[in-house]
Parts: sequence; C-alpha cells; structure tokens
Amino acid sequence: MLTGQSTVGILATVNDHPERAPRYFEDYVPGLVVDCGAFSVSEEEIIAFAKEYDPQPFHVDPVQAADGPYGGLIASGWHTTSLMMRQLVEHFVSPESSLGAAGIDEIRWPKPVRPGDTLHVRASVREARRSGSKPDRGIIRSLAEVTNQDGDLVMKLTAINFVRLRDPSA
Amino acid sequence: MLTGQSTVGILATVNDHPERAPRYFEDYVPGLVVDCGAFSVSEEEIIAFAKEYDPQPFHVDPVQAADGPYGGLIASGWHTTSLMMRQLVEHFVSPESSLGAAGIDEIRWPKPVRPGDTLHVRASVREARRSGSKPDRGIIRSLAEVTNQDGDLVMKLTAINFVRLRDPSA
Repeated sequence: MLTGQSTVGILATVNDHPERAPRYFEDYVPGLVVDCGAFSVSEEEIIAFAKEYDPQPFHVDPVQAADGPYGGLIASGWHTTSLMMRQLVEHFVSPESSLGAAGIDEIRWPKPVRPGDTLHVRASVREARRSGSKPDRGIIRSLAEVTNQDGDLVMKLTAINFVRLRDPSA
Repeated sequence: MLTGQSTVGILATVNDHPERAPRYFEDYVPGLVVDCGAFSVSEEEIIAFAKEYDPQPFHVDPVQAADGPYGGLIASGWHTTSLMMRQLVEHFVSPESSLGAAGIDEIRWPKPVRPGDTLHVRASVREARRSGSKPDRGIIRSLAEVTNQDGDLVMKLTAINFVRLRDPSA
C-alpha cells in the first residue's frame, strides 16, 4: 500500500515516481486498497474550472452562491472527478499497463466540496477478470472514494478499466 | 427544441442567452430532447487538460500515443464529460432552477475522442418525479449523448439532477 503524498500544484506523471513498480492486471487483486494521497482545493481553482466547464452560479459566483442552494460556493462535480483522476494516475494506474477506461458506474456526490477543503482519495479493487476476446488484457472494476478533512464522503464512483497482463501466457 | 450553437472558446453562462426562457421541473417532461450544440476539440486542449488532470501517455504525449493502445492521442474521458457539461449548462440546465446533481449513472466511452473531432451533445429527459422529502423540488434523470462528426457515439451518461419547481403548490 502506497503512502499518500500531497500533490497540490504539481503536474506529475507516474514516470516522476521511479521508485514505484508498475502494476499489471495480475497486481490488481480484489481487496487491494491503495491510498492515493490528498490535495486542497482553492476558491480560485473552483471558479476557474467552473467558468470553463460548468458555469452555474453556485460554482462561479461567490455572491450569488451565498444566497443559493448550498449557502456558498461549491466545486463542480466534474472538477472533483478530474482532481481525483490525477491522484489515481499518480498512485493507482500504471502507464505500462493502462489501456484506458470503458466507463464509470454510479458517481455519487453525497456532500459538496467547498473552497479550502482538503480531499483524500482511496482506490479499492472490487473485481478483476480476464477479457474474453483479447488475451493480452483484463478488466478491473475499482471503487474510488473521496473524503474531506472531516472524514465525510464527498464523492464515490466505480471505474471500469482495461489493464494489460504482465504474462498473457499464464 | 433549441438549435445547437457552437461555443468554442466562449465562456458563456445561460445568462448570456436572454432569449431563452428558464426551465423548471415542470418543463423537464420525459421525452423532451434538447439539442445542446457542437464544438471542436484541438490537440492543444486535449494535452493541456490531461497534463493537469489525467497525465497518461495516450492523453499527453503524441509520440508515445502513436505507439500506444489507440494509435494516437485521445482525449481524457473527464475532458469529454467536462466539455459536455458546458453544453448542458448553456442549453439544458437553467440557473433559475438548477439545484445541482446527486450523481451520474453509467458513463460509457464507446469510442475515443481524437484531436480535431467535432462533438455534438444531445440531452433527453428520461424520468421526472417530485421529491418525497422536499416539496420545492423534483428529481430528473436525463440521458446525455455525445457523437462525433461521423455520427459515432463517443460518450453517453445518465445524470440525476435536483430541479426547483415553478409552482410547488400545484
């Protein structure tokens, strides 16, 4: 299990972590839990993302947001998913084996993300099976959970990823 | 039904479209289909988004991507969802009634998005019901579909949104 590292403001790739051994399909065993680190979210970042991708009043305008349904500015759910993805790429996914995602099941945003929140990401492998049609790969279903500094769950989702086998002949 | 407008590079909010009447819960009738416009995605945008949020080789490095699983650079799925959201905010969601999203069911990315693709977004209301606990709002389930210039589906998802009623006493 990796120890989480804060990566605020760092545009890192997995290649920047040479100490980490690559993971292949065989390593994503159901039950594996990986700490994917923590990061903080500023009001400035929340507004900048939302102005470009999700310009609803409660994401872009602190004054309107104060009188809005959340009593203040909150992050776009797509901002939270994107920030979570960065942590997954740095701590859970390997460039040697990742073949992309087929999709996502059940994103839930049970609590809002607010400016100044510190978010922590954890990934858990739930299912792993070989592909029926392509012998070089398997399909992994993983639960990603994002919690805030109070331990409240702010997002969860299940990702469906294609992952290369280390040894397709096994 | 609204006519789609390209919004490439424009950071617009619904307030920039004064001709559009606000939609409330009562207006999101199952069967309603809304054309949410089209936009193009450049290689530069794909790389910039992915460097920040999803720095996998096939999203950030055209040379590595050429030898990778997709035979070239493709957009992060989170980039596609974020760009889709901008179209939904401009054409489907109303700032007068939107109370945010509870979550998303079943994102699927059946085909990759490549540099230069022109993507078209369409939203269809599938279910609408009043909230059991909060009389001022309802819950809408909508299918969002994104197709490319060849008519291929590149993404679909089902969004679950809270929407204010025009007349909660009705």
